Amino acid sequence: MAGNIFGNLFRLTTFGESHGTAIGGVLDGCPSGVTLDLDAIQTELDRRRPGQSAIVTQRKEPDTVEFFSGVFEGKTTGTPIGFAIRNTNQKSHDYSHIKDSYRPSHADYVYDQKYGFRDYRGGGRSSARETASRVVAGAIAKQFLNDVTINAFVSQVGNLKMDKSYKDLDLSLTESNPIRCPDPLTAKKMEDYIKEVRKQGDTIGGIITCVAKNIPVGLGEPVFDKLHAELGKAMLSINAVKGFEYGSGFDGVAMKGSEHNDKFNTDGTTKTNYSGGVQGGISNGMDVYFNVAFKPVATVIQPYDTIDKDGNKVTTQGKGRHDPCVVPRAVPIVEAMTALVLADYTLLNRTIKL
Amino acid sequence: MAGNIFGNLFRLTTFGESHGTAIGGVLDGCPSGVTLDLDAIQTELDRRRPGQSAIVTQRKEPDTVEFFSGVFEGKTTGTPIGFAIRNTNQKSHDYSHIKDSYRPSHADYVYDQKYGFRDYRGGGRSSARETASRVVAGAIAKQFLNDVTINAFVSQVGNLKMDKSYKDLDLSLTESNPIRCPDPLTAKKMEDYIKEVRKQGDTIGGIITCVAKNIPVGLGEPVFDKLHAELGKAMLSINAVKGFEYGSGFDGVAMKGSEHNDKFNTDGTTKTNYSGGVQGGISNGMDVYFNVAFKPVATVIQPYDTIDKDGNKVTTQGKGRHDPCVVPRAVPIVEAMTALVLADYTLLNRTIKL
Amino acid sequence: MAGNIFGNLFRLTTFGESHGTAIGGVLDGCPSGVTLDLDAIQTELDRRRPGQSAIVTQRKEPDTVEFFSGVFEGKTTGTPIGFAIRNTNQKSHDYSHIKDSYRPSHADYVYDQKYGFRDYRGGGRSSARETASRVVAGAIAKQFLNDVTINAFVSQVGNLKMDKSYKDLDLSLTESNPIRCPDPLTAKKMEDYIKEVRKQGDTIGGIITCVAKNIPVGLGEPVFDKLHAELGKAMLSINAVKGFEYGSGFDGVAMKGSEHNDKFNTDGTTKTNYSGGVQGGISNGMDVYFNVAFKPVATVIQPYDTIDKDGNKVTTQGKGRHDPCVVPRAVPIVEAMTALVLADYTLLNRTIKL
Amino acid sequence: MAGNIFGNLFRLTTFGESHGTAIGGVLDGCPSGVTLDLDAIQTELDRRRPGQSAIVTQRKEPDTVEFFSGVFEGKTTGTPIGFAIRNTNQKSHDYSHIKDSYRPSHADYVYDQKYGFRDYRGGGRSSARETASRVVAGAIAKQFLNDVTINAFVSQVGNLKMDKSYKDLDLSLTESNPIRCPDPLTAKKMEDYIKEVRKQGDTIGGIITCVAKNIPVGLGEPVFDKLHAELGKAMLSINAVKGFEYGSGFDGVAMKGSEHNDKFNTDGTTKTNYSGGVQGGISNGMDVYFNVAFKPVATVIQPYDTIDKDGNKVTTQGKGRHDPCVVPRAVPIVEAMTALVLADYTLLNRTIKL
Repeated sequence: MAGNIFGNLFRLTTFGESHGTAIGGVLDGCPSGVTLDLDAIQTELDRRRPGQSAIVTQRKEPDTVEFFSGVFEGKTTGTPIGFAIRNTNQKSHDYSHIKDSYRPSHADYVYDQKYGFRDYRGGGRSSARETASRVVAGAIAKQFLNDVTINAFVSQVGNLKMDKSYKDLDLSLTESNPIRCPDPLTAKKMEDYIKEVRKQGDTIGGIITCVAKNIPVGLGEPVFDKLHAELGKAMLSINAVKGFEYGSGFDGVAMKGSEHNDKFNTDGTTKTNYSGGVQGGISNGMDVYFNVAFKPVATVIQPYDTIDKDGNKVTTQGKGRHDPCVVPRAVPIVEAMTALVLADYTLLNRTIKL
Repeated sequence: MAGNIFGNLFRLTTFGESHGTAIGGVLDGCPSGVTLDLDAIQTELDRRRPGQSAIVTQRKEPDTVEFFSGVFEGKTTGTPIGFAIRNTNQKSHDYSHIKDSYRPSHADYVYDQKYGFRDYRGGGRSSARETASRVVAGAIAKQFLNDVTINAFVSQVGNLKMDKSYKDLDLSLTESNPIRCPDPLTAKKMEDYIKEVRKQGDTIGGIITCVAKNIPVGLGEPVFDKLHAELGKAMLSINAVKGFEYGSGFDGVAMKGSEHNDKFNTDGTTKTNYSGGVQGGISNGMDVYFNVAFKPVATVIQPYDTIDKDGNKVTTQGKGRHDPCVVPRAVPIVEAMTALVLADYTLLNRTIKL
Repeated sequence: MAGNIFGNLFRLTTFGESHGTAIGGVLDGCPSGVTLDLDAIQTELDRRRPGQSAIVTQRKEPDTVEFFSGVFEGKTTGTPIGFAIRNTNQKSHDYSHIKDSYRPSHADYVYDQKYGFRDYRGGGRSSARETASRVVAGAIAKQFLNDVTINAFVSQVGNLKMDKSYKDLDLSLTESNPIRCPDPLTAKKMEDYIKEVRKQGDTIGGIITCVAKNIPVGLGEPVFDKLHAELGKAMLSINAVKGFEYGSGFDGVAMKGSEHNDKFNTDGTTKTNYSGGVQGGISNGMDVYFNVAFKPVATVIQPYDTIDKDGNKVTTQGKGRHDPCVVPRAVPIVEAMTALVLADYTLLNRTIKL
Repeated sequence: MAGNIFGNLFRLTTFGESHGTAIGGVLDGCPSGVTLDLDAIQTELDRRRPGQSAIVTQRKEPDTVEFFSGVFEGKTTGTPIGFAIRNTNQKSHDYSHIKDSYRPSHADYVYDQKYGFRDYRGGGRSSARETASRVVAGAIAKQFLNDVTINAFVSQVGNLKMDKSYKDLDLSLTESNPIRCPDPLTAKKMEDYIKEVRKQGDTIGGIITCVAKNIPVGLGEPVFDKLHAELGKAMLSINAVKGFEYGSGFDGVAMKGSEHNDKFNTDGTTKTNYSGGVQGGISNGMDVYFNVAFKPVATVIQPYDTIDKDGNKVTTQGKGRHDPCVVPRAVPIVEAMTALVLADYTLLNRTIKL
């Protein structure tokens, strides 16, 4: 209720600040009997980890997850899965320069106003470090979902756009480059561009596309908890996200009903999929796909003007170890949140019919 | 949990199918002592009502709300507000032609799969008629919010786009035309276009922009229940919505951090507002604004191919009274959902500090 | 959240004041495909109805339930079931004498303090009239549960106690007398005693025992939502309830572990059932049984001293049509709440295993 | 939802099995700005700790809590408080004798049936060890509540009953003896009796009484979430609890309304307090007091007959380090759960009035 719980039945609670002792979470409601591959969980965490390539933040943290409970003899027990990731490489002194001033377009000002209080060490709770806990839980959700495949990838960086449908891409190439763009040529251009932006001490936005396949018909709870509504909320809850669209999305606005309607095949599948795998808020068995827009991160390594707590103007210099573009590292987060939503709706769907 | 409850503390439960006895809802958690203007609630309902102009569905229902509880001597009592709107003009026989077939891009197929059952009378629960209950509750939320102003309007129909920021528009003109576009010239073009589309028996999509002003600093509950994440979910839960973006939205992707960052004035306001009034998931006191993309409605008044329950191909003819473009009537729904989110977060925000 | 919603998946929201237009509710999450016997629902309501016998309140209301939604062609659809019961026989003038004073041990004073406001007409929301909505929803839950049988009965009135275990009683006799005590001799004594108490203008408390049979093993969600914990909350939420005990209850305190432990038969059933059908918070397949203690209702038809809103002493005279003893009419309410809990946990239990 | 979350706004999630790596929890919704006395939290844990006296289990665990987040510079930050307590003294081999058989009146059988799986090491999640996490969170709640005082004590062990009202006791004596009974003479008798029972390898039940003072008027959310209903659920969720009564409780059944009604003083307080500080589900400012009945713990150190997983009869011998009577160590747990409920309702109550 106070914002740190996600999901209804497959329910994740996270805790932790970027510069505290540890971050972590509790996953409650994961059914018993799921065989857990702990290495696969760590692999997902490694995809999100800082320092993994030349184009991401050089903060180096091993991000090793420790499980406290809920797993016995390699399987989930049906009891809550508690876990934590120690913060090992905090450099709080990197933040002393912002202790008394608010960074523009960060959460500094609003946290201070809302909580009457501010943890100036790297954003505290508002840091994207918290998403590591989501990746752990999402990796468990993926293993629970089993038959479903979830693939996210970078489809745009700045104005560099990959003009191909996900259907024309070899998604197995996503992990072959540091951008996580499955089109190697575009990936190279994006990488060069991000390096250039970083050299300027600046940052740039991007788009992640995500596709989930083999989803059973029936996931989603109208009217308020439509499948795409919860996916949208999940994505918008990720740091720096500014927009979400699924299926035809914003482009669907200019289409006519007669073109947009997805005609049926006799097996219930559809010939087109402008619906994005969701009709009336419920999955129809077609691929669920959507785009997530990320703004440029606010931390620029440049001098900037701002104000301090007393409203005085100050000029300061951006410092610290930050990503020039968040989308490469956000790919596993998008997948994790997708998995959490699908796992939750899979459980809910078991309760619908006599 | 089964999808018909929205909100945490200011919490709406809705019920009702398009062709049942009545639709309605229960609003629980509205604080006591709110003076209710019942006429203002009915006025909001009238803005959503079918048959209000030449470009919307000609289904004629008075949509009169009856309150059962929670109001005494003109004020809310703090107890749940139960209400219903009778369905008076159902023409169920209009739907007999689809009893045995699934309409493409409707919820027919997925409801049948999910619930093992289908109410073929006009979509049943999946009909947008349900949103009338949201408008009632949203109108109460507006009165609770008092100082906040919420204005939605149509900013795009098909490819016809109004190329002005909301700041350069006179929003008081929104209700002056049946499109609910505050730019009269564009409104006229949109109206003509919708009429033309309707003549073809077709439908077209559109975009609604919404602006909320005078929002206090501090609304929003990180990390999962960020203000914009809940607004996004609220919008995506409205029938036919395919996308949501706030502040700089999808365009922000191509901006650099140095341009996108909103510099502070000394009073804590910002010189620009690419953030859309939300930073770190919490309102910063600037205008909250966002776009909501609606697809073309699926019901076309043309012959079309589809399948029946047994997977046989059938050709049928679209009939019934439907909107050629939903956005004009969706304007009050967008406002209502915005009000519900803001009311809920206003209450939650009271619990955050010692 | 604001207290008018019960259950997680099988979820009831109620609304309505004793002297408003109507009371009612929305039952969300009832699975689709449940064949509903509407007469059986009305029969349950009739068991709770005022005016049904000489020993209950003579307020006469037909208490006819109208369903708005969620039922189609005799079956539940999986969509929310909205319903209302009109208030037809309110005599608000009966309450004018208490408009300005607080009745002792009623909710008058605390409602005024909490909500800054008071509906003086018969208790408003705090009236037990609200429980009629529970009975409707409970009757649906009973039909969903199907194989489970739930029988409540009066086991004590004042000091008149029925000294038999439920196992030695013919529970089919419960409805054969106005007390709803399955032992006719004790029932007669109780009836005489209640009449005597009423003659004094006074009221008396009582105990209801409830037994649920044929419950599958596995219902209950440790650690906080143990089956008996939720049953306890359900019972304590009924007006006038002061205590709850299950299985050995308060008497179990004086037993030793070696006597209290329920030894297994080889089929997993137990030879004794001090556990009351619940171990570790989970049903073990044995009968679930419990006692619910009701205080004497506060409304006495005698002169009494109290205070008004300004803290002045006043003497007033109890009036109105009230029950001298609530337990006979509370029997169907206890059953309804039991059914709601069991239905909810039945749905939850479907989500626990891979 | 899956049972491991308690509270609505002041919300605790716990995790952990008795013989896993650690137990712990996340407390979400604790307001920012609460000065935390970490020693006081540890002191509460020490009151619950095994091995603290001669009459409790001799399992020796230091039970040191580590905080991961949510506290900065000695105050709560408004972000979730994650914490863990390592399990350091598990003797899993103590349980090898029960690996293949179900202990009577334990959770062994039902866990196996429900989860398809069983953690045979000392009860796993069903062990009362989990309540240590509740004590941590409850200690934080106590510090948030500040003015409220909560005192629980042992009022009965077996048939040994302390025949005094809490008002005639010096509650500061509770901690002066290992029983936690504020009447030293009765405490001594109880201690002797527990020792005797233990010598027999047996166990015995008991009652804890709890009193909360200085509670503001207005806590509690009718109709379902009445203050005493949630207190009842909280107590019934504690291991081994079989009953709950507040105010006049089960004895109130035999009283008449005219004696039971609590007459007002002119300041709104009442002359008597049969209501137990709660009227209509809302606190009225008087002392809230209640009794909680605990059964004898099931683990007896005697030979006993039972069945194994395949339904074969087996005779086994109770072993391990267990409490002969749980009530002394349960006193801080009762207080903790009381504090959690009161903290939650304090936050909820802030949202009720305009």
